[in-house]
Amino acid sequence: MRYAPSDLPVFTLTTGPVDAYPAVLRSLAATVLYDYDPVFQATYQRVAEKLATVVKAETMPVILHGEPVLGLEAAAASLLGPGDVMLNLVSGVYSKGFEGWAARSGAEIVELAVPYDQVIDPAEVARVLAERPDITVVAACHHDTPSGTVNPVAEIGAVVKRHGALFLVDAVSSFGGMPVDAESAAIDLLVTGPNKCLGCPPGLSILGVSNRAWAKMKANPAAPRASILSILDWQEAWRADRPFPFTPSISEINGLEAAIDLYLAEGPSKVWARHALTAAACRAGLKAMGLAIWPAEEAFASPTCTAVRTPQGIDEAQLRAEIRARYGVVLSSGRGETLGKLTRIGHMGPTAQPLHAIVALSALGGGLSALGHRVDIGAGVAAALAVIEAG
Amino acid sequence: MRYAPSDLPVFTLTTGPVDAYPAVLRSLAATVLYDYDPVFQATYQRVAEKLATVVKAETMPVILHGEPVLGLEAAAASLLGPGDVMLNLVSGVYSKGFEGWAARSGAEIVELAVPYDQVIDPAEVARVLAERPDITVVAACHHDTPSGTVNPVAEIGAVVKRHGALFLVDAVSSFGGMPVDAESAAIDLLVTGPNKCLGCPPGLSILGVSNRAWAKMKANPAAPRASILSILDWQEAWRADRPFPFTPSISEINGLEAAIDLYLAEGPSKVWARHALTAAACRAGLKAMGLAIWPAEEAFASPTCTAVRTPQGIDEAQLRAEIRARYGVVLSSGRGETLGKLTRIGHMGPTAQPLHAIVALSALGGGLSALGHRVDIGAGVAAALAVIEAG
Amino acid sequence: MRYAPSDLPVFTLTTGPVDAYPAVLRSLAATVLYDYDPVFQATYQRVAEKLATVVKAETMPVILHGEPVLGLEAAAASLLGPGDVMLNLVSGVYSKGFEGWAARSGAEIVELAVPYDQVIDPAEVARVLAERPDITVVAACHHDTPSGTVNPVAEIGAVVKRHGALFLVDAVSSFGGMPVDAESAAIDLLVTGPNKCLGCPPGLSILGVSNRAWAKMKANPAAPRASILSILDWQEAWRADRPFPFTPSISEINGLEAAIDLYLAEGPSKVWARHALTAAACRAGLKAMGLAIWPAEEAFASPTCTAVRTPQGIDEAQLRAEIRARYGVVLSSGRGETLGKLTRIGHMGPTAQPLHAIVALSALGGGLSALGHRVDIGAGVAAALAVIEAG
Amino acid sequence: MRYAPSDLPVFTLTTGPVDAYPAVLRSLAATVLYDYDPVFQATYQRVAEKLATVVKAETMPVILHGEPVLGLEAAAASLLGPGDVMLNLVSGVYSKGFEGWAARSGAEIVELAVPYDQVIDPAEVARVLAERPDITVVAACHHDTPSGTVNPVAEIGAVVKRHGALFLVDAVSSFGGMPVDAESAAIDLLVTGPNKCLGCPPGLSILGVSNRAWAKMKANPAAPRASILSILDWQEAWRADRPFPFTPSISEINGLEAAIDLYLAEGPSKVWARHALTAAACRAGLKAMGLAIWPAEEAFASPTCTAVRTPQGIDEAQLRAEIRARYGVVLSSGRGETLGKLTRIGHMGPTAQPLHAIVALSALGGGLSALGHRVDIGAGVAAALAVIEAG
Repeated sequence: MRYAPSDLPVFTLTTGPVDAYPAVLRSLAATVLYDYDPVFQATYQRVAEKLATVVKAETMPVILHGEPVLGLEAAAASLLGPGDVMLNLVSGVYSKGFEGWAARSGAEIVELAVPYDQVIDPAEVARVLAERPDITVVAACHHDTPSGTVNPVAEIGAVVKRHGALFLVDAVSSFGGMPVDAESAAIDLLVTGPNKCLGCPPGLSILGVSNRAWAKMKANPAAPRASILSILDWQEAWRADRPFPFTPSISEINGLEAAIDLYLAEGPSKVWARHALTAAACRAGLKAMGLAIWPAEEAFASPTCTAVRTPQGIDEAQLRAEIRARYGVVLSSGRGETLGKLTRIGHMGPTAQPLHAIVALSALGGGLSALGHRVDIGAGVAAALAVIEAG
Repeated sequence: MRYAPSDLPVFTLTTGPVDAYPAVLRSLAATVLYDYDPVFQATYQRVAEKLATVVKAETMPVILHGEPVLGLEAAAASLLGPGDVMLNLVSGVYSKGFEGWAARSGAEIVELAVPYDQVIDPAEVARVLAERPDITVVAACHHDTPSGTVNPVAEIGAVVKRHGALFLVDAVSSFGGMPVDAESAAIDLLVTGPNKCLGCPPGLSILGVSNRAWAKMKANPAAPRASILSILDWQEAWRADRPFPFTPSISEINGLEAAIDLYLAEGPSKVWARHALTAAACRAGLKAMGLAIWPAEEAFASPTCTAVRTPQGIDEAQLRAEIRARYGVVLSSGRGETLGKLTRIGHMGPTAQPLHAIVALSALGGGLSALGHRVDIGAGVAAALAVIEAG
Repeated sequence: MRYAPSDLPVFTLTTGPVDAYPAVLRSLAATVLYDYDPVFQATYQRVAEKLATVVKAETMPVILHGEPVLGLEAAAASLLGPGDVMLNLVSGVYSKGFEGWAARSGAEIVELAVPYDQVIDPAEVARVLAERPDITVVAACHHDTPSGTVNPVAEIGAVVKRHGALFLVDAVSSFGGMPVDAESAAIDLLVTGPNKCLGCPPGLSILGVSNRAWAKMKANPAAPRASILSILDWQEAWRADRPFPFTPSISEINGLEAAIDLYLAEGPSKVWARHALTAAACRAGLKAMGLAIWPAEEAFASPTCTAVRTPQGIDEAQLRAEIRARYGVVLSSGRGETLGKLTRIGHMGPTAQPLHAIVALSALGGGLSALGHRVDIGAGVAAALAVIEAG
Repeated sequence: MRYAPSDLPVFTLTTGPVDAYPAVLRSLAATVLYDYDPVFQATYQRVAEKLATVVKAETMPVILHGEPVLGLEAAAASLLGPGDVMLNLVSGVYSKGFEGWAARSGAEIVELAVPYDQVIDPAEVARVLAERPDITVVAACHHDTPSGTVNPVAEIGAVVKRHGALFLVDAVSSFGGMPVDAESAAIDLLVTGPNKCLGCPPGLSILGVSNRAWAKMKANPAAPRASILSILDWQEAWRADRPFPFTPSISEINGLEAAIDLYLAEGPSKVWARHALTAAACRAGLKAMGLAIWPAEEAFASPTCTAVRTPQGIDEAQLRAEIRARYGVVLSSGRGETLGKLTRIGHMGPTAQPLHAIVALSALGGGLSALGHRVDIGAGVAAALAVIEAG
């Protein structure tokens, strides 16, 4: 039995888009209201207020109406200008990629880079900041998804704060799946979205902004205004009595409310725990199957994505195709420099359930075996279940 | 009996967002697939191919993943540069507003303006083009929604074509509700979206691009690339075997497919006919009630939106609030220069059904009467029904 | 413009099935749980508890898993036996129809009948009961839908109670749209369903049962047991810790919970008020259009259904077909003895909004005019709006 | 990490209700039309016509509006009468249970019983029929779900046909998941429902009826008429131009159409193959884990349900509770005589995907281990994957 490319997959265990929670899907089907209808205006404010309790920025969250690449591009364009020196902490494809947007602003870019299976050392950040007191902004990617590695943003944030620079963090694929918020990591501009661990479809960005970040953006003449890229335009839009700069994505907001309600009802720490346990079970299983994770150390590995090194002699694209054809399971490839070198298993939102690790291990193991790289799947599953049992 | 602001409205008869068709709402709730899953890739190509049959541009339609202000801003940024002279045809708030985005490109803006209750005369366009042979781009707004007026884009397109300039048209609130396509109006860059007459929620832009427009954008060094504002990045994205520049809005695409399927199944000319009949019935009713439409001539009036002049002594915002409280009906205000001067009744997608004109007339008449401006609603309804009977 | 029979209607203003509330429709799409899953068991008990607050019977409501004809047939089969004498209060097709099920039990049927445009006089009930002290059960139909007439069940209930008989009431098309409950009308077996005024799809029955009714059913050897027709089997099924006699209709229960939540959130008295106002506006409009309602007196007319006498010379079926083709509006015919003699406009759940009376009047008036019976629709709409304005 | 009883389960791997296919769930949310609206009438006929292609009875399928216990009770009541002798083929709880309904008809019941882990031998049927030439009806349960055993209905049907009796088959939990239809098994009255292998929620019965069965029911004065239990009333209801005896379950019909469309699109033989492969993988895994299936021989085991004998010393209810708490997986218990003796894993509709066998084995193995009965889950998973690989 083979699943044809035209057959719906059975399990989408990717690093996003992932399937949304059923309650989110149903909310997307809600009546589309006029954006200035008082019911929708109240909904929008209520969503912002709920988000505020988990984003924990100094000011109300900003929702931008495009998936998080909009949030990231807008952040770079709004916060940076020709007079800035930005330290970019590069530990993967996404943190490196942020430089493109940052450079457009005219800011000088200073780079602190590590190999893409490593994470940033806060002491190194302190060292570079000491060398370059003129650094005004530090940018980091919390979870560099193409590597499945997590940077210690809380520790880095403390260093940045002491220096006095603004701290801009891409928390797109970590927020909602592990502990991170603007307050605990001293983040001035936190960029995330609901389409990863919150279990929504792609289409929105969520930003947490400090007072200093607002001040800097307002003082920046090049910060986008009257533009899809503007953050400034949306500062007050969360208030039910203020106009929207343009039409918000009504249905996505309805979906987001369902997602944040689920997140708060389950309790963030319970949600993080099941992400962490799923990933831990997955890693234990891989190890037992003789497979290596991509991160150089297990401590670097993300609870929302497990990146598995492609064994010698295996064509990674062929591997994923085989896994889909044989089991109906969809996994993610690497990206950019990690493309072809690893396969990623997402543990995000509805798929961050421990048994999904078993599904992933079985499918991955089966796919590898089919391509001639025999692994002991039974041992892998047993090891994963032992972690779950203890979890 | 009054509807509280927290009560859901009964009828949303606005000029957008309007409620989506039920089948579209259900499609929004479909399983969220990975964007590189072959099923989604095939869906995306299929949606583009269906759109192509109605957008009728020389090349495959481009879908941008934000509501049509993204499409418009991206069009201005991509098509225009410092060497360009753009003739902007200004007949309302939206056509005037486009200048802001156009000016950012460094292009020189030449303006041909008429009062906001008038429409553009193609002969005048020809005259200005003759005066300024260096004009490279002409921009028009097909349906300037804040006025409820429709410009003769097919005639203007013929004039522009003879001149040799590129023709950029904002067809956001007309496309899908009246006859307009890239071919028949010689449009080089048609910008629209599914959230008006196609009956989808806001969240996407649709662009129809001519070969000349692609060539000009590619040759434009300032055209956005690696940006949410890029059109160029998405040129080949419709193909199932090509990557997406960034994650598309999966659920909105699912909704769009349902909408385009409904549109093709009903047949565009049938869809346009019910928009036209609804608007005609509405105008007849208003006239019989002694109310004036905003357009200076009935021939200028849009089939997708009827703008009604606010009678002397009536506070327009209070009028809409009263109508919502009394009948649960939501109407649109004017915008910018037309704000306070008119109320707009949308006839878009699911609300473009003749009996909705009766609902609107009853609610508007009742609201006016409640504020002391007595109108003969019975006469209005009878006149509207006579139009429907004959239609 | 004509709506083809294959086109979806625009307004379903029938006496049921009516469209469900949007929130109910979305709930129908919820994940189908195993009936013995604790989440579903808790849901089932919670739904019963919410229903109990509005059914107001002495014991917990019983949900049967078929539309209300199941509830009615089961009630007759469970409550009645060869030794019983049942007084059937016949004021229409449905109350008369109940005799078929009652007679099967072997009970003797005594009938108190009035013409089908009249309602039952409680004094007459008292008179018959005095004549026949052996009457053990009195059956009434609260709202005899094919006539659009409402019997005074509270007054009748008081009479029945004094006599000591059990009172069985069909409240299918009244419950949720006007004040009626087991307590206030001294009903021993109230049969209703969520598919009329609660705005659910058809598929369930709801029963309110007094202690005496339970005792009588238990003592009845012929009462269905181990049968789809059994009420007894379901007595304890509402409890989360008790088994279901057979698999309940999971999705319908999910829909019912959404409906009861809406009903409680809006507030029953507010819901009844909008049903009443819609019907009053409708009747005023009909009168102004020179049309007659079916009930002999306006005081008999239902707030959930307005029955309009077919004018002389009009073919009723042709009239409804014309109304659908011309306006996309669906109305109900009469049934049995009233078939061909009247057209019914439903005011139930989502369609019990005052402006829907305007829609109905316009469509009905337009349809009559098209068939040659000209009516003054303007006058009708004006009269209806005056009622709404005052309401 | 534990799942609370109030947490939604992650996997419902029961023998029904099972979760519906996502496309079915969305269809349940479709607009509720009036049952006499031509669009719904056409839908109903279309659904019947699609069903006819897979039920393959001599006449059009009958849909009854309650879950299959309605279909079974109605079949017994309609087909049987005092003059009949029914041979009941008892191989489990459900086939035995049918006698209750059959006996009510006044028919004489002859029983051919085997232990509940065995299946019926067609030769034995022939023997009994030869002994009792007066047998008029033979009843069998194709898949006796509480045992997870499948009777050879095609072979039995041939025997019954030769005898000349009518053949009544409960195919509720087999139809749609394995090959069975009225034609190939010479079934005169096939009773099934969409809520098992077709992936719909419970709420409907589907009947396939031969000409002889219709003739017998019509000639049976005791066959229910004007009753929820009537089959006769619905004979012509599938036709768009015929009335419904009472209001059909509109939303369930919408869901059924989506389900039958999926079934036909995937292709019945592909659907059966994935049910069979899932079950085969499951059985191989159980064996490798040292667990025994309930059926005495593997050849008796159902492709839609795998029944696992409860190991010595394990409390079956506690086992399922532990599995739900630990993994979020819901399994089914036995019923009646098999209660406590086995646990059932459903492979039905959306859960009949081979990897679900891995999920079930992991959860079952983990649950047993937690209760002190250690099993080698790794070996089980490996064995299951080997079957999948070869499948």
